[in-house]
Amino acid sequence: MVNIAVLGYGTVGSGVVEVLTTNRESIAKKAGEDINIKYVLDLRDFEGDPIQEKIVHDYDVILNDEDIKIVVEVMGGINPAYTFVKDALLKGKSVATSNKELVAKHGAELLRIAKENKVNFLFEASVGGGIPIIRPLNNSLTADEINEITGILNGTTNYILSKMSAEGLDFDTVLKDAQDKGYAERNPEADVEGHDACRKIAILTSLAYGKQVDFEKIQTEGITKITDTDIKYAKKLNGSIKLLGQSKKVGDEVFAIVAPIMIGANHPLFHVNDVFNGIFVNGNMIGDAMFYGPGAGKLPTASAVVADVVDEVKHLGVNITSIWSEEKLKLGDIKKAKYKYFIRFADSVKLDAVKEAFGAVTTVDAGISGEFAVITEEMSQENFEEKIKGFDGVLNTIRTEL
Amino acid sequence: MVNIAVLGYGTVGSGVVEVLTTNRESIAKKAGEDINIKYVLDLRDFEGDPIQEKIVHDYDVILNDEDIKIVVEVMGGINPAYTFVKDALLKGKSVATSNKELVAKHGAELLRIAKENKVNFLFEASVGGGIPIIRPLNNSLTADEINEITGILNGTTNYILSKMSAEGLDFDTVLKDAQDKGYAERNPEADVEGHDACRKIAILTSLAYGKQVDFEKIQTEGITKITDTDIKYAKKLNGSIKLLGQSKKVGDEVFAIVAPIMIGANHPLFHVNDVFNGIFVNGNMIGDAMFYGPGAGKLPTASAVVADVVDEVKHLGVNITSIWSEEKLKLGDIKKAKYKYFIRFADSVKLDAVKEAFGAVTTVDAGISGEFAVITEEMSQENFEEKIKGFDGVLNTIRTEL
Repeated sequence: MVNIAVLGYGTVGSGVVEVLTTNRESIAKKAGEDINIKYVLDLRDFEGDPIQEKIVHDYDVILNDEDIKIVVEVMGGINPAYTFVKDALLKGKSVATSNKELVAKHGAELLRIAKENKVNFLFEASVGGGIPIIRPLNNSLTADEINEITGILNGTTNYILSKMSAEGLDFDTVLKDAQDKGYAERNPEADVEGHDACRKIAILTSLAYGKQVDFEKIQTEGITKITDTDIKYAKKLNGSIKLLGQSKKVGDEVFAIVAPIMIGANHPLFHVNDVFNGIFVNGNMIGDAMFYGPGAGKLPTASAVVADVVDEVKHLGVNITSIWSEEKLKLGDIKKAKYKYFIRFADSVKLDAVKEAFGAVTTVDAGISGEFAVITEEMSQENFEEKIKGFDGVLNTIRTEL
Repeated sequence: MVNIAVLGYGTVGSGVVEVLTTNRESIAKKAGEDINIKYVLDLRDFEGDPIQEKIVHDYDVILNDEDIKIVVEVMGGINPAYTFVKDALLKGKSVATSNKELVAKHGAELLRIAKENKVNFLFEASVGGGIPIIRPLNNSLTADEINEITGILNGTTNYILSKMSAEGLDFDTVLKDAQDKGYAERNPEADVEGHDACRKIAILTSLAYGKQVDFEKIQTEGITKITDTDIKYAKKLNGSIKLLGQSKKVGDEVFAIVAPIMIGANHPLFHVNDVFNGIFVNGNMIGDAMFYGPGAGKLPTASAVVADVVDEVKHLGVNITSIWSEEKLKLGDIKKAKYKYFIRFADSVKLDAVKEAFGAVTTVDAGISGEFAVITEEMSQENFEEKIKGFDGVLNTIRTEL
């Protein structure tokens, strides 16, 4: 029997308890050992809940108990999670976490500390909720050099964009609906401004290239500027607007961005709708692959956390290597990255002037009065920004891979 | 440096050499060791090809060379692959294979022998080509009990059905085109009759439930009876006909089948077209997940084989456990499995007679003259077969999940 402790009895923490209870027998078979939750750390008490007998308020109880081989950190946030996780690893305990902020910020260091202490630091649930993506990147796509990772990494924004598209509603209306349904936070900034997706693409990119990508360095745009009119054009083009976290290798440089991007119906992520996530990977040998599933939610996320625990039970005393080092990956200057741009202009603008500024463009007619839209050829962001700066009458611009 | 031998210099074998050569540096970094191909076993010589210096014709050279730690078996077929693989494992060499016949037939035994000899027997490429699915089932979905695995597991038939659907062509015309393009064999039986998909769903089901599923026990139907008219109806229903390998847990029983099944546009496999494969998995905690990618092809398949080699290099002398035992999984009687059925009748049949026999049905009008079609409620195969037996004027029947 292996004893573990769960830090935080919130949504994911209670999910971890539920998964380990419901599937106890089959999990024990796969892990080779029965897994016992000895402690749950939470500031609160849960009178009347069977979990109460395992609740402790003092982390030192867990840290100093040599019976505890694995610590599950599902509190979220940097502090005190970072200290708790680091101390656990230094004490020779493996850690499984769903905490994307922690992994994006301190992943490389914690992996090193785990290795030095012959334990493991695993974080499958930090990206894509229940979807297996971290382990496939670490262990399955090892024969490949990764050319591109593009993900729908945030369920809240994908739900909002899907619903705007399906029902022709505007952003504010759908955001309110998402908040009412519990799909979006009261303060939705981390989701709708792309910060959550940014941490996730930083983690995936770090793993793909083996060096630390600082998420602060990734240009991040949210979806608050996307209107129902933009979506009408996307539909007319048989396309869809998705908030994508993307890193692409061009020559020796890796470019990373989080932004709403218009994609076509033949893109593997086109059909990833509602709260689902999808991660597209292109490798130089495998070609295109895609991983799809629930990007959040209590049980799917807990399923990924517990899978990490099972892996750690199978590897007690043996470090599972990961090539993510503390060395920084110098990202390519995103201003040099090339995209086609979808641009909407007020009717007052002359198409000839657009062509003069942007070169060859394809016009798009979605039957919207008072305006028109074009798609440019590929151009660098730098080049695009310079041209758009001097232009009056621009209603909106969106990158496109159409 | 770790020395390996490749058995068979055909499509996949030469792909393995190409992957290991092209990505040598990044693979060495991930494996922690340089990987060197010391021998390639093939009956042929390859004069003028740099591989010639590594070619051996006698397997004993490989078997008796203690330097060889890993054997890559990409010859296909049961004999002599089975003997070669077994002997390698008994000699303390790990094996990576893409050979679905071998794995379906002898997987459980070879896994046991590998375990007894503290080596590994891995077979990621045997299902889904380059798509990571074996390792995710073994290592990522361990917190879940699997309710369903449904896969588009054969690229040839998916290409044929996709092209029939996209271009309104009949089966024979498209099969010929696929043969001309090299997507289908001159003798296409293994693909179009579902035998290939059958072995693959047997492997996935064995891994999901930890017991041996004999592929001979799986009811297998191919796509040769699917007509362009059937596809017109499917389109009218906003659906699609796919050759699916499927295993579903209902209560304590697992039902497995390979058959063409009509699915709707909201099914994650609906958009898996052409030679791509997709594997849908439902777990009791994660819910729905899907893995998508190239189901065949030289480099994608080799990518999966080499990923296994990397895993084996990282686990020299340590067995990676898998729960697939030699104990037989007694499949549920497929005659009791329930589906809705799509049935086409000649105009001479009276709808009232259909309703009398099959109960409530939904009629489908695709504007085809001389016939009509219905979809039944869910019924067991046994029940369906009994009712359809006495019926004249049945043009075709297809299971449906619409």
